[in-house]
Amino acid sequence: MTYCVGMMLEAGLVMMSDTRTNAGVDNISTFKKMFTWEVPGERVLTVMTAGNLATTQALVSILDERTKAPGEREPDLLTAPSMFQVARLVAGTLKDVIAANANEGQRADSTFNATVLLGGQIKGSPPRLFLIYPEGNFIEAGKETPFFQIGETKYGKPILVRAYDPEMSFEDAVKLMLVSFDSTVKANLSVGLPFDLQVIEKDTYKIAYQRRIEADDPYYHEISTSWGEALKSAMDSLPSFTF
Amino acid sequence: MTYCVGMMLEAGLVMMSDTRTNAGVDNISTFKKMFTWEVPGERVLTVMTAGNLATTQALVSILDERTKAPGEREPDLLTAPSMFQVARLVAGTLKDVIAANANEGQRADSTFNATVLLGGQIKGSPPRLFLIYPEGNFIEAGKETPFFQIGETKYGKPILVRAYDPEMSFEDAVKLMLVSFDSTVKANLSVGLPFDLQVIEKDTYKIAYQRRIEADDPYYHEISTSWGEALKSAMDSLPSFTF
Repeated sequence: MTYCVGMMLEAGLVMMSDTRTNAGVDNISTFKKMFTWEVPGERVLTVMTAGNLATTQALVSILDERTKAPGEREPDLLTAPSMFQVARLVAGTLKDVIAANANEGQRADSTFNATVLLGGQIKGSPPRLFLIYPEGNFIEAGKETPFFQIGETKYGKPILVRAYDPEMSFEDAVKLMLVSFDSTVKANLSVGLPFDLQVIEKDTYKIAYQRRIEADDPYYHEISTSWGEALKSAMDSLPSFTF
Repeated sequence: MTYCVGMMLEAGLVMMSDTRTNAGVDNISTFKKMFTWEVPGERVLTVMTAGNLATTQALVSILDERTKAPGEREPDLLTAPSMFQVARLVAGTLKDVIAANANEGQRADSTFNATVLLGGQIKGSPPRLFLIYPEGNFIEAGKETPFFQIGETKYGKPILVRAYDPEMSFEDAVKLMLVSFDSTVKANLSVGLPFDLQVIEKDTYKIAYQRRIEADDPYYHEISTSWGEALKSAMDSLPSFTF
């Protein structure tokens, strides 16, 4: 499993992914699930992946190779004229990769499936965030649904639903995401540190901030330990039930 | 779907279940999922069910009929000598009901499956809490895992993990459960009000408190609305992330 969150704020995009992959509980590894393509000053694109690792690695490799062999197959990630065209490109490639492995044709429960979050901005239009399905179609985040999760989404959702605010600062968004990731890590062995964090500030067309949050990160530990206390205080602050 | 929680405290047991059933999103109904058998002063048994409604209704009807036609098949819920024997009885009956409907033999993904929480106390031994699987086997709650959830368990788990305390009062346990249920209801349409609540006080061998929490319950509304604020305050109380 995996846990990735892409969040659209008024100030830009915040993306976070875990790095744990597993084939059974006795075969776990660490792999990067966040990939970025940049043309500084013109476009920045970040992809986060959940699902079959062979599929997602093939997807990223194909997307990346195409940017390095221009003309071979147009458009590529670096030349597509809009985020929508980028999403179509990623989605089509994802569908092709899965189809190449699915020996009985593509089904919704294919073991080769993967899901992708694509966020970024191309000069001339606002930042956009897409959730791309293994079937090759996709949806876009909007005002009503301003963040997407992929992978093991349920444990970390309630806090996002409650505390998200489109006007929040990048700092607050990272804090919120870390709480959401911590809730997930505590509940599900298939999600694990380190986490990859990326911030894309609106209208800058580059990565504003990027960091790997390691298992021994002091800030993460502080969040993780303080959150239990904070939740207990929050519980205490609620009115008591009386029989 | 469904959401039920059974929680073992030092003071006794607290059980809560939702009442929504659905066959698709366009066919939702309200059904009780909590059932109790009592011999006041000697035993109290409560069953909560999740899964195929035909299966769980058949299970409860069979268990209930046997208590009314004694001698036909021994032991029944009211005569089994221990909670373990009650759990075996419920589990065996559950397995039989599923097998009678599963036309290709019983598989883990059978559409007729159901899962059961059984809690209660029989004079002479402490309160016990069991999670019974559709395969007819079961596990018992202990000090390390003092509560069980069935149904749509993930959204409401993080708060239980963080805030549960075996020494908490029944009142605090109900408050905690309502927060957990509220997180689930807010995230999943297949879980819905009203909720059934039951408290079994240790060594009393009867239901200490029972109530249906309706959708317009003022306390639930207060919890539901205050919890968002309390969470935001809890987030604010955490140290800020700095780039």
